[in-house]
Amino acid sequence: MSSNEDVPVRAPERTGVWFVGARGSVATTAVVGALGVAQGLAPATGLVTELEELDPDGLPQLVDLVFGGHDVNPQGVAKKAESLAEGGVVPAALVSAVAADLEKVDAEVRPGYAPGEEDVATAVQRLADDISDFRRRHDLARVVVVDVASTQPPVDHPEELTDLDGPLPVGAVYALAAFRSGASFVSFTPSPCLRLPVVVDAAARHGLPYAGCDGKTGETLLKSALAPMFVMRALDLRSWTSVNLLGGGDGRTLADPEAARSKTVAKRSGLDAMVGRPVPGPMHIDQLEDLGEWKTAWDHVRFDGFLGTRMTLQLTWQGCDSALAAPLVLDLVRLVSAAHAAGRSGALPELGFFFKDPVGGTEHRLTEQFHELVAWRRGLAS
Amino acid sequence: MSSNEDVPVRAPERTGVWFVGARGSVATTAVVGALGVAQGLAPATGLVTELEELDPDGLPQLVDLVFGGHDVNPQGVAKKAESLAEGGVVPAALVSAVAADLEKVDAEVRPGYAPGEEDVATAVQRLADDISDFRRRHDLARVVVVDVASTQPPVDHPEELTDLDGPLPVGAVYALAAFRSGASFVSFTPSPCLRLPVVVDAAARHGLPYAGCDGKTGETLLKSALAPMFVMRALDLRSWTSVNLLGGGDGRTLADPEAARSKTVAKRSGLDAMVGRPVPGPMHIDQLEDLGEWKTAWDHVRFDGFLGTRMTLQLTWQGCDSALAAPLVLDLVRLVSAAHAAGRSGALPELGFFFKDPVGGTEHRLTEQFHELVAWRRGLAS
Amino acid sequence: MSSNEDVPVRAPERTGVWFVGARGSVATTAVVGALGVAQGLAPATGLVTELEELDPDGLPQLVDLVFGGHDVNPQGVAKKAESLAEGGVVPAALVSAVAADLEKVDAEVRPGYAPGEEDVATAVQRLADDISDFRRRHDLARVVVVDVASTQPPVDHPEELTDLDGPLPVGAVYALAAFRSGASFVSFTPSPCLRLPVVVDAAARHGLPYAGCDGKTGETLLKSALAPMFVMRALDLRSWTSVNLLGGGDGRTLADPEAARSKTVAKRSGLDAMVGRPVPGPMHIDQLEDLGEWKTAWDHVRFDGFLGTRMTLQLTWQGCDSALAAPLVLDLVRLVSAAHAAGRSGALPELGFFFKDPVGGTEHRLTEQFHELVAWRRGLAS
Amino acid sequence: MSSNEDVPVRAPERTGVWFVGARGSVATTAVVGALGVAQGLAPATGLVTELEELDPDGLPQLVDLVFGGHDVNPQGVAKKAESLAEGGVVPAALVSAVAADLEKVDAEVRPGYAPGEEDVATAVQRLADDISDFRRRHDLARVVVVDVASTQPPVDHPEELTDLDGPLPVGAVYALAAFRSGASFVSFTPSPCLRLPVVVDAAARHGLPYAGCDGKTGETLLKSALAPMFVMRALDLRSWTSVNLLGGGDGRTLADPEAARSKTVAKRSGLDAMVGRPVPGPMHIDQLEDLGEWKTAWDHVRFDGFLGTRMTLQLTWQGCDSALAAPLVLDLVRLVSAAHAAGRSGALPELGFFFKDPVGGTEHRLTEQFHELVAWRRGLAS
Ligand SMILES: NC(=O)c1ccc[n+]([C@@H]2O[C@H](COP(=O)([O-])OP(=O)(O)OC[C@H]3O[C@@H](n4cnc5c(N)ncnc54)[C@H](O)[C@@H]3O)[C@@H](O)[C@H]2O)c1
Ligand SMILES: NC(=O)c1ccc[n+]([C@@H]2O[C@H](COP(=O)([O-])OP(=O)(O)OC[C@H]3O[C@@H](n4cnc5c(N)ncnc54)[C@H](O)[C@@H]3O)[C@@H](O)[C@H]2O)c1
Ligand SMILES: NC(=O)c1ccc[n+]([C@@H]2O[C@H](COP(=O)([O-])OP(=O)(O)OC[C@H]3O[C@@H](n4cnc5c(N)ncnc54)[C@H](O)[C@@H]3O)[C@@H](O)[C@H]2O)c1
Ligand SMILES: NC(=O)c1ccc[n+]([C@@H]2O[C@H](COP(=O)([O-])OP(=O)(O)OC[C@H]3O[C@@H](n4cnc5c(N)ncnc54)[C@H](O)[C@@H]3O)[C@@H](O)[C@H]2O)c1
Ligand code: NA
Ligand code: NA
Repeated sequence: MSSNEDVPVRAPERTGVWFVGARGSVATTAVVGALGVAQGLAPATGLVTELEELDPDGLPQLVDLVFGGHDVNPQGVAKKAESLAEGGVVPAALVSAVAADLEKVDAEVRPGYAPGEEDVATAVQRLADDISDFRRRHDLARVVVVDVASTQPPVDHPEELTDLDGPLPVGAVYALAAFRSGASFVSFTPSPCLRLPVVVDAAARHGLPYAGCDGKTGETLLKSALAPMFVMRALDLRSWTSVNLLGGGDGRTLADPEAARSKTVAKRSGLDAMVGRPVPGPMHIDQLEDLGEWKTAWDHVRFDGFLGTRMTLQLTWQGCDSALAAPLVLDLVRLVSAAHAAGRSGALPELGFFFKDPVGGTEHRLTEQFHELVAWRRGLAS
Repeated sequence: MSSNEDVPVRAPERTGVWFVGARGSVATTAVVGALGVAQGLAPATGLVTELEELDPDGLPQLVDLVFGGHDVNPQGVAKKAESLAEGGVVPAALVSAVAADLEKVDAEVRPGYAPGEEDVATAVQRLADDISDFRRRHDLARVVVVDVASTQPPVDHPEELTDLDGPLPVGAVYALAAFRSGASFVSFTPSPCLRLPVVVDAAARHGLPYAGCDGKTGETLLKSALAPMFVMRALDLRSWTSVNLLGGGDGRTLADPEAARSKTVAKRSGLDAMVGRPVPGPMHIDQLEDLGEWKTAWDHVRFDGFLGTRMTLQLTWQGCDSALAAPLVLDLVRLVSAAHAAGRSGALPELGFFFKDPVGGTEHRLTEQFHELVAWRRGLAS
Repeated sequence: MSSNEDVPVRAPERTGVWFVGARGSVATTAVVGALGVAQGLAPATGLVTELEELDPDGLPQLVDLVFGGHDVNPQGVAKKAESLAEGGVVPAALVSAVAADLEKVDAEVRPGYAPGEEDVATAVQRLADDISDFRRRHDLARVVVVDVASTQPPVDHPEELTDLDGPLPVGAVYALAAFRSGASFVSFTPSPCLRLPVVVDAAARHGLPYAGCDGKTGETLLKSALAPMFVMRALDLRSWTSVNLLGGGDGRTLADPEAARSKTVAKRSGLDAMVGRPVPGPMHIDQLEDLGEWKTAWDHVRFDGFLGTRMTLQLTWQGCDSALAAPLVLDLVRLVSAAHAAGRSGALPELGFFFKDPVGGTEHRLTEQFHELVAWRRGLAS
Repeated sequence: MSSNEDVPVRAPERTGVWFVGARGSVATTAVVGALGVAQGLAPATGLVTELEELDPDGLPQLVDLVFGGHDVNPQGVAKKAESLAEGGVVPAALVSAVAADLEKVDAEVRPGYAPGEEDVATAVQRLADDISDFRRRHDLARVVVVDVASTQPPVDHPEELTDLDGPLPVGAVYALAAFRSGASFVSFTPSPCLRLPVVVDAAARHGLPYAGCDGKTGETLLKSALAPMFVMRALDLRSWTSVNLLGGGDGRTLADPEAARSKTVAKRSGLDAMVGRPVPGPMHIDQLEDLGEWKTAWDHVRFDGFLGTRMTLQLTWQGCDSALAAPLVLDLVRLVSAAHAAGRSGALPELGFFFKDPVGGTEHRLTEQFHELVAWRRGLAS
């Protein structure tokens, strides 16, 4: 992959990928994977945009993506990739093979925004400049900013956040910077930012598209595949208990109850919407340091069948969160960049397939979301 | 429910339900449940045809169903209902409440066909006469014959079975009798009969509809909801192991390896079709006497994610088979009767939603099947 | 069972069983079961004291137990038994068969002690009088008071509770009453009471034996069987996560975080003691109304093997709590009564086999506890 | 570890470890691990003989073990170690660190015995010579031969195998060679060989100790820890279903039903013995290529509690078989060598702790076996 290098003669358009949280697990896995797949070192498993229905050839190619981003952590992308390899998230051989490219990506990471250390208006301008500069230096057709930074706590009165004065959630600051620089925006974290008037207005003013929020990778993915089964079969869901054990950086962040609240709210909303009424049941997110990047989720589903017969379904999901998230991030980059190129602006609810808490949409059922996605993709092409 | 009683003045059309295996678990649960729901003693949980999308009011009502059937077992329906109540399949109070009705249903059960004890041509005529007589005596608009008899072994050269001479699978004998009597036919068991030339021809000759086969109630239902998730997310299914522990009459039958072979074949076909290639993995069906009517199924699903990361999903399903099957049987009766009334004939692939091995169709994905069903139902109404 | 009737000529000694919480699930199940087994209507499954090693013939017989108790709930034992039968905890037929006996037991239930409504000293005397009166009226050789009342919150400075002035935990009030009346005491709930100086002193002063606390019935039982396996095999337990879903009265009580704290403390202590160091991992107790008297517990155990290989064991336990607790309560009554008869006093650590948090002992390994129990029982006989 | 090198002045006694199947997974993991732990590169996790109760200092030290063996596979130990590292069984870094030592071990591997290619008497002599030669060249105090070769089918009339004429099971040929060379013998595979008159006699004649058979590493280990819990609590085990999914070399061998029969027989015997009656339930061993060296076992345990209440325990064990087996192999070498030094001969039933099917013993309960082991070890020292 020639990604971060000089532009060849008559090159195809190149798309910039600007990660907020560029040195985190998800961003690093996405970069290692994009390089690996583009260079033919790894299969395209997990990339939805490589399915025929989504017409991969008409989308930006992985080989044409150029990576950069913001982070507040000084430890570099290459180092992170090594620790991911140790944890079994990415193959060690692949990390070695792309080591030089990773250094180039890390050279494109700029200091992030730390709340309190800068006033919001200044920060937005500085971050926007970083993005614009990145686009110019690499002669990019477009940039997609993807927020994969640590989960932030929810906001109490989102509807009151209408301007740059006063504190804004971190994600909102980045979204505003993205729009100011002419970039589209994807919120892959559980974040209120795409529902704040100040952010929605900025996107509209700049005519830019955005999508979010909170990547649908594990238990919620399962729910969106399974809950419709109960509904279509007229079975009566009595309770749905969810326990998530996870380690890693995300685990550490979610050990903070405030941050976890964002997550559980995002996770809950879908089930109730699919069933058409609240489904009771506890939901836990627990940090278990020794699990590393691996997550184990246990779901206990109680439902009644014919004549009230009591039945149960239990699920145990053992997945690698970053490896589930990374391909979706690349899918979103390709699709949002194509939407931007096609002149779309505002929320993209048809990308709800990728999110726990789809902005602009109300559909949570996976198959229906997939059909919407395919239809939208087709519309983009024509 | 006035079901098996004299026809009131200007009654709505009544539909006959003729069970092959009328004294078995599924048939008895269906009868108890239909009576219970019709009399307002039990909720309609599990009845797909009560979902708004299927326009319940336009279908035969439960209160207008009249039950009868064939069986080779002398032990009556009421007795079976009691033992189902003991096993927790149906509420004991409900069985008491409908006890008198169960006796009336049992009075409509005629001796079944035992292979070897009668030649096929004679049997077909005798069984057809039983059904015609039932229709006449109760002044029924239509009869739907539903095969819920014990699972039969598969047939080696189905394409050679073109006439009544020589041995035919039991289910085929009943299907031929149904068609000769002018009734439609549903094969709820794993059976080759709806694919035999002799049966297909008879249905065509009489212009009658049929649907099958093998009710999709447990593990296969789950698969048809979950396998598409892996496909839509481009995840690589490496193996799918299925273990079924079950007791009851069905468990005893399936302890015979030949009979079990029918079942595992039906269960396998769908997964491979949905994934588009064979997915390896053992499948076991084991009888565990002490489980009674309850089934426990464990599925172990190995899949690869991005960059080949190895992940696992495990499922434990604890369901009551007869309680899962019975409402589907009633749904099928209502839908096939409506199809018959609307002049449909031949295979009804749009009812694939209800079957492990849909006759006439190739779609196994649950949501797609549901959409097909709803569209078909709409077409029926107009 | 002639239990609550007039004493026949030359009857064997009879033992009184005085339940604190006599109208709760555990007490009622114990009574129904004792009557059922004594009358030959049910097998002795679950009764440890019926194992040969414990010499059942030398212990009080179930037929010689007489029941009574305190409760603050006016709803009677018979009513409770019916609702337990509905929930599948006890067979409905058995409840019918012993209905008359249950009424007699309920007639022996006296108003319990509600903190705040009576001062402690008055209460102790009143409750002691109830017990003495019960013994006298039924001509009982001995009475064992068993606390199976709702779980109470823990106490912050147990060592400061040295006299009757000021508030005492509910269980302590009952223990003091038991001792004052000359009865032995078993705390089957998670309770600090058997470690309070005021209670320990009273037992010593009266020369009476006691045992506790918190019946070991589910997940903790499993832990005490399994954790030693890891230790004996030198495997490195990295984390042990426990999730308990339960309904019923106990579930409702434990939905109160303060009460639940008592429970999780009791549950934790054993594992760390068996392993010899703290084993991390979350522990949840969640109420799930629709589970009724049934509990589902999921345990996720992470351990390292040779050369640090990461392995996992998961357990799903689906048990009926009251049915697990009730036979232990009867076992304890028989054993503590025999200890009392043999002149033992003070804590009985050799009964640790039955408890999550054994008073007076430090052994938590199930097999070792069983050996201690058997040896102690043998000592009692000689 | 100076293992395969020249003997230093005044060296402690050295013990030879002669593996039958020296190039297989278990043998290679044992060698890599022994080297790693001896050289301080890995913790002693999983080594039972490092527990204080077993007085590790009085046993042969890992640093004093010298490895060699027989195999029929030309692919070397170092190569195998690499593939184990790829499969996550042993750390890749450790394999690199001991690479040179592995080459030395492989240089000590001699061609094994392939049935049919050599007559038994000739083979026994040739194999014995290999072992004697090994002992002489390395100046070893003693050699322990450990059979970790591929599982062999069971024998129909073991009692008839009284001499060297005619076919003998492979393991028996190796056992006879061991004894002829003056070495003790451990059968870690499911094998009839330690119960054949010809083998038992040879051991007696040479006055040598032996132990077996079939290492207790996974599901059977769990059973031996858990089944006693049900017995001690007087709970009624109704069925115990076991499903084993495994890949690797062992998985390939066990895909052969004849070989698998050896395994299921060994696995069954213990449970019935512990419970005192046959416990029904299917047992499956399935090969799942993509699991590699990892095994997943699912157990479904149905038991009745008080008054017949139906309860269930499910277990999912995800372990790495070779990593579970290897430390036990080293434990057995240390203990059998010590027994040999102490003059013990014949079967060593006190080592039943390590085996699914303990030769010479009937005890299957893990804790009891551990106590026997500790007592025996103590006896050895004095
Ligand atoms: N992995 C999944 O399956 C998944 C699914 C849905 C959502 N997510 C979300 O993706 C996000 C990233 O997850 P991760 O596992 O990569 O976490 P991580 O902790 O490994 O990475 C987060 C990165 O964000 C950086 N960061 C923190 N604050 C920042 C700031 N103010 N500005 C710029 N960078 C900042 C951190 O330094 C870190 O490098 C989380 O919000 C998580 O909830 C992940
Ligand atoms: N319960 C489910 O979830 C489910 C799902 C799919 C398919 N099925 C199928 O439904 C069928 C019935 O299952 P069940 O649990 O009710 O079994 P069952 O054993 O309780 O009942 C079968 C009945 O068929 C009768 N029978 C046997 N041979 C007959 C013959 N030649 N003619 C007439 N009657 C005959 C038996 O006497 C018995 O009364 C089975 O084939 C089963 O595979 C059940
Ligand atoms: N079931 C088990 O497996 C198990 C195991 C260990 C411990 N326990 C303990 O046993 C106790 C009883 O459990 P349960 O399921 O029967 O609960 P329950 O709620 O069904 O019964 C508790 C009874 O105690 C009564 N009570 C409450 N406060 C009282 C007071 N001050 N004086 C007298 N009576 C009072 C209640 O009215 C009720 O009848 C709980 O503390 C529980 O933690 C149960
Ligand atoms: N891994 C465990 O947890 C475990 C537990 C109990 C028993 N075992 C037993 O240990 C044995 C080895 O398991 P593994 O996983 O190492 O298997 P493996 O297939 O990796 O190794 C077996 C080795 O034996 C060799 N072999 C085959 N026939 C031979 C012969 N005639 N002479 C000499 N060598 C021969 C093979 O070439 C191979 O190198 C098996 O019998 C298995 O059942 C393993
Ligand atoms: Na993460
Ligand atoms: Na309870």
